[in-house]
Amino acid sequence: MSHVATTFHDIAVDSLGTAEFPSPIRRARKPGENLCTFVSPEARIREFVEFSLVHPPAEERLFESAGPREHLFFRPALTRCAVVTCGGLCPGLNNVIRSLFLELHFNYGVAVVLGIPYGYQGLDPSMGHAPIVLTPDSVLNIHHQGGTMLASSRGERDPEVMLNFLLQQRVDVLFCVGGDGTQRGAHAIAMKAKERGAKLAVVGIPKTIDNDLSFCDRTFGLVTAVEKAVEALDCAHVEAQGAPRGIGLVRLMGRDAGFIACNATLASQDVNYCLIPECPFELDGPRGLLEALRSRIDGRGHAVIAVAEGAGQHLFGASSGTHDASGNRRFQDIGVYLKDRITTFFRERNRPVELKYIDPSYMIRSAPANCDDMLLCDQLARHAAHAAMAGKTDVLICYKNGKFLHVPIPMAVAKKQQVELDGPLWASVLAATGQSARYGE
Amino acid sequence: MSHVATTFHDIAVDSLGTAEFPSPIRRARKPGENLCTFVSPEARIREFVEFSLVHPPAEERLFESAGPREHLFFRPALTRCAVVTCGGLCPGLNNVIRSLFLELHFNYGVAVVLGIPYGYQGLDPSMGHAPIVLTPDSVLNIHHQGGTMLASSRGERDPEVMLNFLLQQRVDVLFCVGGDGTQRGAHAIAMKAKERGAKLAVVGIPKTIDNDLSFCDRTFGLVTAVEKAVEALDCAHVEAQGAPRGIGLVRLMGRDAGFIACNATLASQDVNYCLIPECPFELDGPRGLLEALRSRIDGRGHAVIAVAEGAGQHLFGASSGTHDASGNRRFQDIGVYLKDRITTFFRERNRPVELKYIDPSYMIRSAPANCDDMLLCDQLARHAAHAAMAGKTDVLICYKNGKFLHVPIPMAVAKKQQVELDGPLWASVLAATGQSARYGE
Amino acid sequence: MSHVATTFHDIAVDSLGTAEFPSPIRRARKPGENLCTFVSPEARIREFVEFSLVHPPAEERLFESAGPREHLFFRPALTRCAVVTCGGLCPGLNNVIRSLFLELHFNYGVAVVLGIPYGYQGLDPSMGHAPIVLTPDSVLNIHHQGGTMLASSRGERDPEVMLNFLLQQRVDVLFCVGGDGTQRGAHAIAMKAKERGAKLAVVGIPKTIDNDLSFCDRTFGLVTAVEKAVEALDCAHVEAQGAPRGIGLVRLMGRDAGFIACNATLASQDVNYCLIPECPFELDGPRGLLEALRSRIDGRGHAVIAVAEGAGQHLFGASSGTHDASGNRRFQDIGVYLKDRITTFFRERNRPVELKYIDPSYMIRSAPANCDDMLLCDQLARHAAHAAMAGKTDVLICYKNGKFLHVPIPMAVAKKQQVELDGPLWASVLAATGQSARYGE
Amino acid sequence: MSHVATTFHDIAVDSLGTAEFPSPIRRARKPGENLCTFVSPEARIREFVEFSLVHPPAEERLFESAGPREHLFFRPALTRCAVVTCGGLCPGLNNVIRSLFLELHFNYGVAVVLGIPYGYQGLDPSMGHAPIVLTPDSVLNIHHQGGTMLASSRGERDPEVMLNFLLQQRVDVLFCVGGDGTQRGAHAIAMKAKERGAKLAVVGIPKTIDNDLSFCDRTFGLVTAVEKAVEALDCAHVEAQGAPRGIGLVRLMGRDAGFIACNATLASQDVNYCLIPECPFELDGPRGLLEALRSRIDGRGHAVIAVAEGAGQHLFGASSGTHDASGNRRFQDIGVYLKDRITTFFRERNRPVELKYIDPSYMIRSAPANCDDMLLCDQLARHAAHAAMAGKTDVLICYKNGKFLHVPIPMAVAKKQQVELDGPLWASVLAATGQSARYGE
Repeated sequence: MSHVATTFHDIAVDSLGTAEFPSPIRRARKPGENLCTFVSPEARIREFVEFSLVHPPAEERLFESAGPREHLFFRPALTRCAVVTCGGLCPGLNNVIRSLFLELHFNYGVAVVLGIPYGYQGLDPSMGHAPIVLTPDSVLNIHHQGGTMLASSRGERDPEVMLNFLLQQRVDVLFCVGGDGTQRGAHAIAMKAKERGAKLAVVGIPKTIDNDLSFCDRTFGLVTAVEKAVEALDCAHVEAQGAPRGIGLVRLMGRDAGFIACNATLASQDVNYCLIPECPFELDGPRGLLEALRSRIDGRGHAVIAVAEGAGQHLFGASSGTHDASGNRRFQDIGVYLKDRITTFFRERNRPVELKYIDPSYMIRSAPANCDDMLLCDQLARHAAHAAMAGKTDVLICYKNGKFLHVPIPMAVAKKQQVELDGPLWASVLAATGQSARYGE
Repeated sequence: MSHVATTFHDIAVDSLGTAEFPSPIRRARKPGENLCTFVSPEARIREFVEFSLVHPPAEERLFESAGPREHLFFRPALTRCAVVTCGGLCPGLNNVIRSLFLELHFNYGVAVVLGIPYGYQGLDPSMGHAPIVLTPDSVLNIHHQGGTMLASSRGERDPEVMLNFLLQQRVDVLFCVGGDGTQRGAHAIAMKAKERGAKLAVVGIPKTIDNDLSFCDRTFGLVTAVEKAVEALDCAHVEAQGAPRGIGLVRLMGRDAGFIACNATLASQDVNYCLIPECPFELDGPRGLLEALRSRIDGRGHAVIAVAEGAGQHLFGASSGTHDASGNRRFQDIGVYLKDRITTFFRERNRPVELKYIDPSYMIRSAPANCDDMLLCDQLARHAAHAAMAGKTDVLICYKNGKFLHVPIPMAVAKKQQVELDGPLWASVLAATGQSARYGE
Repeated sequence: MSHVATTFHDIAVDSLGTAEFPSPIRRARKPGENLCTFVSPEARIREFVEFSLVHPPAEERLFESAGPREHLFFRPALTRCAVVTCGGLCPGLNNVIRSLFLELHFNYGVAVVLGIPYGYQGLDPSMGHAPIVLTPDSVLNIHHQGGTMLASSRGERDPEVMLNFLLQQRVDVLFCVGGDGTQRGAHAIAMKAKERGAKLAVVGIPKTIDNDLSFCDRTFGLVTAVEKAVEALDCAHVEAQGAPRGIGLVRLMGRDAGFIACNATLASQDVNYCLIPECPFELDGPRGLLEALRSRIDGRGHAVIAVAEGAGQHLFGASSGTHDASGNRRFQDIGVYLKDRITTFFRERNRPVELKYIDPSYMIRSAPANCDDMLLCDQLARHAAHAAMAGKTDVLICYKNGKFLHVPIPMAVAKKQQVELDGPLWASVLAATGQSARYGE
Repeated sequence: MSHVATTFHDIAVDSLGTAEFPSPIRRARKPGENLCTFVSPEARIREFVEFSLVHPPAEERLFESAGPREHLFFRPALTRCAVVTCGGLCPGLNNVIRSLFLELHFNYGVAVVLGIPYGYQGLDPSMGHAPIVLTPDSVLNIHHQGGTMLASSRGERDPEVMLNFLLQQRVDVLFCVGGDGTQRGAHAIAMKAKERGAKLAVVGIPKTIDNDLSFCDRTFGLVTAVEKAVEALDCAHVEAQGAPRGIGLVRLMGRDAGFIACNATLASQDVNYCLIPECPFELDGPRGLLEALRSRIDGRGHAVIAVAEGAGQHLFGASSGTHDASGNRRFQDIGVYLKDRITTFFRERNRPVELKYIDPSYMIRSAPANCDDMLLCDQLARHAAHAAMAGKTDVLICYKNGKFLHVPIPMAVAKKQQVELDGPLWASVLAATGQSARYGE
């Protein structure tokens, strides 16, 4: 038994004003009613659950708990909501749209929920995409379908233009489903609304199949993506074993963070080399990847490689530098590069290999959410509805330590989440593959 | 910013003695090596991550972090391990066996890993089941198969007999994979060994498809079970919609806890009534379930009911009372009972229904682990190996708040985990189904 | 080389009259256009492809080839069609509805396609179910869903009443999707229409998951059902192996014909006893099934049994005799009976077994069609549309010898198709299981 | 009723000599025993089931029925068999190996079944791959796994060298699982054995995922491949709909024959353009594919294209000409070519599209067999065993008109099977896609 005094920093979320309307959500008004109560404004979630007896934390950050509030900022019957999905496809987008609609329409009874087509393009009238009024029928079966019924697009739009459109459509609440670029756009809209004194709630729902958003232990789509990635790795393993000196090479998603590659490697248990953006590696030289591969092929006859798309970009030098419409750096194709380098390496040594290259990216991101992601999407969406109706704005709904919490968007997008090279996930990958921590060092 | 002083209670786990042998596991010896370090003996995991600004916790319990220790109690090359799987089937058993073997054999290099066949029967020589020596070949593909390669059985055995057998086989470490009955047996063996001064580490791995063990946010097999349960609910929904006045009734697992039924209800989004053991309900009377069902069938034409096997046992009165070989109370079949009562109710009113009854239990528990459970099983097993090699005993490896931790077995089995009727899971179920919180009250 | 003279019997199909309207279907008008021609009225399909050199066939029946005709009886723009689905659910019903609609609406351009809800009930105005006008939107995604969007029901209705309703709705073509009971109803409507001089085309699409319709090598839903049945058998096998003296018992569909049980047994390769309606068996006596099972359990420790629902009905004596609304004999539950008899048998001998009983029927029949059934449903439906538009009536679209053909309904329902005990399918089952040809003889 | 006189040509299969040993297979010795009899040497299968009343066939070919013979050429207890799998992976290879082994080992009781590793390389001692003795354990679970447990390779080997190796290993029966290249190799071995008077039975099992072997209505792996291809097309459809002006382009297998592309197009029902080797097309010009695509994208906003790998090779001119180790012509990559041409076409017109390119080939061919292919593989393998034991040689086991038959290898490989442009499959594809029969004409 020991005593520790800690200083807590409460992370404040922006709010549109006083919540004064009673919530129509069915919750207990007081404890003991055998029904969950509303979430108290004082409920908080701790950032960390780990604790060192020898170095107990002197300081800690606390985040607002997500969940339904007893009092709302918006009067539901007068509230007009809009939802937009941005960036690349990700399993679960339709589930988020559907649960948002169901919560807002049936549980809160809002006036209307608009679907904004084609991402932020749909908030720019010059693009000519009209919003869709969502209905129970239009979302009936979408949770079993991949993609997004609203379609999506990449790229920024002028926040002023988007705000004007939202105000013209008399939208009170905007839900932005997307990654860090999208959330930066959401923040810009929220800032612009604040400047103008517009009572617009902007609530972000993190969508990054790469799982690279801070404060998010798990973003939706990740476990579906891992499941699909494992299928591709299984195929690569079958192919590698099915031919003399067979190599299966699979390129997986993961621009800045190798979570899909790491988790798929652990689940598959058949990967020999897992290459991720966080861990640079060299191909050449006596300690490079190619020599390691040669030794394995000569000894065991086959090998499986999982490479995240952002891995090894340093190998391309300055040529890996342009940016796409969303402002993401355009990556060179490390998969094709590895395929060519490996094939050439063995051919030059007169010991050719049979390399089978698989790029399952579009088959992964377009898959319907699996059961676990369905549950996560449903909760994320409903918590977003609760936050918005309570008047929270410029806020991202995050899932961390098994809880849902509110994080100010600027804080969430300040830094990308990555696989920690000195953390347990990477250690597990190294143990499972038996690979060297760093090739070429 | 605020200051809080909390008293921490450190939950001690039993240990066989001083850990003095260096671990062969590849980990960083000090921070900064870009590789995970060993887990420090002072690392702890908090029990709760929720926090109230108005009532900050005055006391908290801390649990040992699981993970590889720098020093071992057992000298690997001389260590003999055994693994036993007890109770009903559960997705992931083979994955646990396999990862235990791989970690012990390849990473620690232990002398032998024995597989004990047919649960605790296999530790009783009078039953005539000889242990199996596990090999890389024998576990090669088992992670893709349901069931357990060791087979299982229910029921207790004399701890004295089991200990004698283990000592005769010169076993140093026993891994017990099972639910609370199994873990009580594991505790009894550990106690008996302590009495006799035998240096036997007994490490439990929680296996309860019902998720009813305390300190376990999620036990392996649960998410696979939910996924399979959703398939059954989807079928029930299709059947209910496919006939005039159709009702789909699905009996799901859950003797004392309704986690499968609740989560499957949320993922399916088509269930109208979710009945769990934690929430008693009445069938008859104006506020009973049957009247509610009548109103729905007359209005909407079809209904889907998910009932956990332990729900509504009070309806059987004293007749629900005998016990099976594991000491579990034998339950009356609530599924068949509901089927008969509902059919009769509507037939008597000359408004018959078409009720389709589905009991998918054996198709759920025998399924192979899905990708997410594969990852959980792998980690649980490897953490169990780490705990055992470090000399921990009478300990259960739990997964809570996203972390793996050590819990003394007696503390873990003192109380079953249940769905909290005033918690968010049940609130979500009520919101998703629109059902009354309690029928008949 | 040899010469054979055979007499051919041409099986005539009923026709409403002269086909005089040109078909709008895109087909070649003459050979050599690199596009399929219309199907000639003289095209025939042989009944048998087997041939004995020593006994060449002296007589053969020829059936009309199905397919688009160059001239139609109905003028598409004025034609009103209706589709009804009857009897129990079967994978592929929605696919049939959808392809019928697509062919009629887009390729022929008919005026309207009505969906008749709840089977033949929907043709009886006293039941109060209004027909639905099908649209491209309403069938958009149904091919991925199990069940039938129109719902179904069992039981006969007065053909006079149904015909009156059809005429009142000005329906020209009725498509009846169902088994032999349904097709008898279709025949009755067609006869009644003929009597009244009504130009109503009645075209049957065979729906029997049991595959028990004559002239049908394969009915839709069968391969999906076998796939799902194999999943249940796999589970039974895992359960049987997972416990001491484990028995997995799976009841499969198959009232009069054991095709699902036989094919699932062959695909699973883990079944030890396959019991079908065609092959009576005894439980008791030294050559009965129970003794055979005892010998296997004592020797091998586990067993898997697949039993079709219609098997062993003779064991119930006269009690197996009542009939359901469709006129089908009500069967006693052979699955539950076997479960009880086997459990008692071993308990009485003090050598109890652990028997796990699985009845997956509702999970099989409500499944969405697999890819192969999708293709079959699509073709059956489009061939039905072609037959109807050409004025064929009282006709069933069958799939035999890899071809689609027209069979007069009365001929098709005269006799049920069964597994031939002296044919190759049953021989394969006996070889795969090693079971005796007949227990108890 | 009509009389037709037809001349039959009996297609003789090569035989090693008189079959004089009684078969140990359990079959009826005479009809009426309620068990299938052995297949009579006079049993034949007709080549065609279609028949024209106006042009009845004057001539017909008859093929030997496959199946167990009452008398064997080989004495099982002394017979040594070998099986080799050649060419690219295909779903079902392991199922064929397993059923071959089970039939030969358990039903015939042959002395040994050797597995030849790495295709024909394994019959050339200079390659250093030793044969494997198959056992019940080694094939236990392989039927659930993709690939081939024996591994495979491409390319020819000297038949003299292979025959010498087979004789040195005292092999009596060689089963060759492969496509037309492999079967030509099998024929060469059979010819060489005949020259040398060696009593070696060479039995081919057709393996072509493309389904391009004559006399084979369906080769194993095809329906699994179609199922997997449909998954890829579904993804492409989701991607195409998920972006402004989205195009999904999927390259499927099919070097000389477009069966996978056609069937997947029909099952998916979302493909707008299906391009196959049998049907040349032009990209440019007012009637070319690019203009058709432009019109669709401008009108409907998205499009899905399925292209078989052998389609459009004429677009590459003479550059599409080198050959691989199996003597197959090396194809230019039509998928990448189309991707580039389409992207450029729209970019040049300042109306860019978002094209997502998917090449699922390695994920298709490495998949485990689905249930339907499992059944086909099992039967093909057992029929191959029957043929071999009866002394048939230089023979291919084919599946046509729903029956299994014997075809002399030289006849089977004389001509590739292709999709008939004037047949019903291609007509269905044109109807389903609405595409022009030939672009650019």
